[in-house]
Amino acid sequence: MNDAVSSVNAGASEIEFWFDFASNYSYLSVMRIEAQAMQRGVAIHWRPFLLGPIFRALGFDNSPFVLQKEKGAYMWKDMERQCRKYGLAWARPTTFPRTAVLATRVALLGAQQSWIAVYCRRIMQLNFAFDRDIGSIDVVSEALGELGLPAQQIIADAQSDANKLRLREQTAVAAAKGIFGAPTFFVGAEMFWGNDRLDDALALCDTTATPG
Amino acid sequence: MNDAVSSVNAGASEIEFWFDFASNYSYLSVMRIEAQAMQRGVAIHWRPFLLGPIFRALGFDNSPFVLQKEKGAYMWKDMERQCRKYGLAWARPTTFPRTAVLATRVALLGAQQSWIAVYCRRIMQLNFAFDRDIGSIDVVSEALGELGLPAQQIIADAQSDANKLRLREQTAVAAAKGIFGAPTFFVGAEMFWGNDRLDDALALCDTTATPG
Repeated sequence: MNDAVSSVNAGASEIEFWFDFASNYSYLSVMRIEAQAMQRGVAIHWRPFLLGPIFRALGFDNSPFVLQKEKGAYMWKDMERQCRKYGLAWARPTTFPRTAVLATRVALLGAQQSWIAVYCRRIMQLNFAFDRDIGSIDVVSEALGELGLPAQQIIADAQSDANKLRLREQTAVAAAKGIFGAPTFFVGAEMFWGNDRLDDALALCDTTATPG
Repeated sequence: MNDAVSSVNAGASEIEFWFDFASNYSYLSVMRIEAQAMQRGVAIHWRPFLLGPIFRALGFDNSPFVLQKEKGAYMWKDMERQCRKYGLAWARPTTFPRTAVLATRVALLGAQQSWIAVYCRRIMQLNFAFDRDIGSIDVVSEALGELGLPAQQIIADAQSDANKLRLREQTAVAAAKGIFGAPTFFVGAEMFWGNDRLDDALALCDTTATPG
């Protein structure tokens, strides 16, 4: 079955997961969410988007972690500790934030495919554990190839005008929903910001689930 | 015994707790920290300070929750949920942020007194559960009086030139330590930002505690 959402138990509730491959706190959630959601029988709607246009619309020309050096210095320390806590590999990327438009277009194209979770984890690991340039076509091809997927075809589809437009629309939807950072989760209309709120968001799914 | 720190078991490790009475996330930590620290035998060093001068030095003329309306709108929702989770009363203050210079000077004066924890909780409740003007001398007097403390004398001492200077110095120390928000915790040289990191900070205390 290719539809990752419909493969989850009928009647389970759902979480919308908005993330950006350049976002370090999105890395934590991308690595954690599938197992956490599975445990609770919650379906994940994967919503890759680009934070860059969101930040620009809010008047920032870069990540707050770059613009505010005290906050940035703290964040790198925090990431080390958070990765240790969750048992995740960590290497500070030599480029940050590493915008990854192609990787994001691929994720959007595959958002309802069975490979979406493992693909997103692989891209995140390449950025935050292996310090690879996930903005390049080579690295995206490699990631897809490793999963046994037809990289060339997927990349061609991802670069189609229709899919490029979909990513712009996806990012506009993010702005319209009031998203100002990543990761961001929605359970129904309730918005949760940050990896620190993933557990709370999933706990709300439990209480809002309709009987199967 | 008047010294709240030395009353904790010898050999226990220590946490520095930097907070601002105007800061909503500081409210959560002020209400939670004493019980959490006691459970682990950790001594709390209370470090009241003013975020206003810190924000101004970083180039912001107000709280990020005021300057960024999307983030602000989210924060009020998040506070409702967080208070529900922790079992804390909550009423959105009609003035935000409610700077409380006198209340902070009193906290600084009392930082090593046995009444510091209960006083800080009372000021926070007045701000975030009862929507009272904690910037006023009347409300600070009332809070001290309720605790059976000599309000008039304490306020006079708090308003002395020496104590005013100490608060300016305290805030300068916060800036020098790289503090950019509140609450902030230190365990040794390790900095933790946000109520969401209180548990992690206390867990580090456990591992760094010297035998009693």
